[in-house]
Amino acid sequence: MNRKDIAINKLKSLGEMIIEDVQKMKVPAIKVPSRGTSNIVYDDVKRHYVLGDRYGKRSLGNVKQIKKIGQMIYMANFCKELVRSQKTATLRELYYVSEGWDVDFGDQQESNIVGEDLEVTLGMTREDLGLMPEEDGASVYGELTIQEGDLEINAMKAGKSGYTISPTIDEVEFVDHDVKRVIAVETMGMFHRMVQENAYKKFDTLIVGLKGQAARATRRFLKRVNEELNLPVYVCNDGDPWGFHIAMVIISGSAKLAHVNHELATPNAKFLGVTASDIINYDLPTDPLKDIDVLRLKELLKDPRYKDEFWKVEIKKMLKIGKKAEQQSFSKYGLEYVVDTYFPEKLEELEQ
Amino acid sequence: MNRKDIAINKLKSLGEMIIEDVQKMKVPAIKVPSRGTSNIVYDDVKRHYVLGDRYGKRSLGNVKQIKKIGQMIYMANFCKELVRSQKTATLRELYYVSEGWDVDFGDQQESNIVGEDLEVTLGMTREDLGLMPEEDGASVYGELTIQEGDLEINAMKAGKSGYTISPTIDEVEFVDHDVKRVIAVETMGMFHRMVQENAYKKFDTLIVGLKGQAARATRRFLKRVNEELNLPVYVCNDGDPWGFHIAMVIISGSAKLAHVNHELATPNAKFLGVTASDIINYDLPTDPLKDIDVLRLKELLKDPRYKDEFWKVEIKKMLKIGKKAEQQSFSKYGLEYVVDTYFPEKLEELEQ
Repeated sequence: MNRKDIAINKLKSLGEMIIEDVQKMKVPAIKVPSRGTSNIVYDDVKRHYVLGDRYGKRSLGNVKQIKKIGQMIYMANFCKELVRSQKTATLRELYYVSEGWDVDFGDQQESNIVGEDLEVTLGMTREDLGLMPEEDGASVYGELTIQEGDLEINAMKAGKSGYTISPTIDEVEFVDHDVKRVIAVETMGMFHRMVQENAYKKFDTLIVGLKGQAARATRRFLKRVNEELNLPVYVCNDGDPWGFHIAMVIISGSAKLAHVNHELATPNAKFLGVTASDIINYDLPTDPLKDIDVLRLKELLKDPRYKDEFWKVEIKKMLKIGKKAEQQSFSKYGLEYVVDTYFPEKLEELEQ
Repeated sequence: MNRKDIAINKLKSLGEMIIEDVQKMKVPAIKVPSRGTSNIVYDDVKRHYVLGDRYGKRSLGNVKQIKKIGQMIYMANFCKELVRSQKTATLRELYYVSEGWDVDFGDQQESNIVGEDLEVTLGMTREDLGLMPEEDGASVYGELTIQEGDLEINAMKAGKSGYTISPTIDEVEFVDHDVKRVIAVETMGMFHRMVQENAYKKFDTLIVGLKGQAARATRRFLKRVNEELNLPVYVCNDGDPWGFHIAMVIISGSAKLAHVNHELATPNAKFLGVTASDIINYDLPTDPLKDIDVLRLKELLKDPRYKDEFWKVEIKKMLKIGKKAEQQSFSKYGLEYVVDTYFPEKLEELEQ
């Protein structure tokens, strides 16, 4: 069964469950796994946050919960039509669509929460239900051929800015590739540098331009190339707590999305740099850490996702030198340096 | 002569001018057109801001100006190499590259200003000099074929998220098209809606997803399709002062970029909506104007770019009803409504 059929089946059975309850003269109720912080646990084997086994019960016997259940059923019905007609809607559109329902939402935050309820109850991502975020995913450049509906697309032939990962990335199939690895970089400045310096040829690599914090579709793409194509994934970001964390959310997912991390996290992905050691070894131009950087680094030290020796050492080293550096700072040694010297040295280190 | 050769020639003559001065035993000096507010004037014929004829003189005879001239010459030299080798650098990379110069910059703001000095002195855009912004431009979907180097790209075959306008858009040539117009929309949510509802077929249109304020490369692209391909350009944004202004910067350029508006502004582009009249006529879901919206609308009323009767009426009407609406709010009537009803009605009105 494909993802589309699974989604329709799950949405249908949600409705059928309620009808059954009514026919049995029982008060209909829905079990919704809890997303509270006490039910979010770090799973050492899976290497990402997962939801525990606590759940709440939404019952039509509880006056306070009637509207919420009504909204959930309306939304499930809307999603069923979306998936069936192979359409998608943004969360914003969904919010406006609900103006035509008898149980409309007060604001978008309310509709987003019911969307998450539906995700977690059905155990599917909202993208599987046809609900999309506003923003597109990353840019991809290199020898990868994919199938999008009737269309075959080569990520070397979509232009200098590459192929854009759309929110519907799960409908895409990988047809063919001729690369040995994937390097994801934080900024489009670095993406264009790598394209211009032929990094895709030099390292037989796909280049992925993250554009800051990776969108869900980007994380899904990276997980899929890692697991379906068996390609190692490296992430290269700015050398500061925010760059570290952009990498970590790709690697180990986020706490907020504990219920979908199994679809999004790529535990085998590796952080390539910029590390505190890189700042020292390459004598990079730096900025001093701000108070908020120091605070954030100290938070990361307590975060279970950063418990590896590698991270402990690098975070402490950054706190000690009190400096951070951007990935574009390698240009101090000329535009080509990052591709000619830094990447080869780091890749050799990581792939030993 | 192509843009590349023109750029190299202009950069060379800047250096030659200085050498000549030295050979003639004159103190070298460079005339830099003033970018101060008093030298920025709205040109009624060109329908965008332009620079007046005031300029400043940077002389090596003035101790305070020696460093600035040095930086400008270093930068010009760096740009000459960039253009010659058909490479580009981000403004951020340029800043780091300058660490290797004898006249490095204190911060990136300083290097950006010298970059603008160079633009305005040579009368070329910084993109022509190889200096690129970080961010990519808009997404384009529809029957347009372009040439990027050896590569021919069809904007219907680059995936659901379309072809991404890269910062080097001036190197792109238009090969073929089969559209009658261009519709640019503020959000990627609306972009994907139009792709899904086959708006490109229904209206024989290119769809451009602006992603908020249009990047310089996007503005250049819109100007080029308008002028080189003779296609009418329509802009559809949120119905609020910020949406109005995203459209106006596409139409009439910005004051800050008065020296390059002739390359970026598309005075023939038209604002399609969402207007205050649309809010009333289509009974759209709205939010009340915030204080800052009201303030901004009043500023727009005084702005020479908004002097047309159309804008005066719509701005005053919005102030009167005290409400704003997003472009996705048409979903109140179902996802298809915006493409099936709103766009056809508005296009008919504008194309009469």
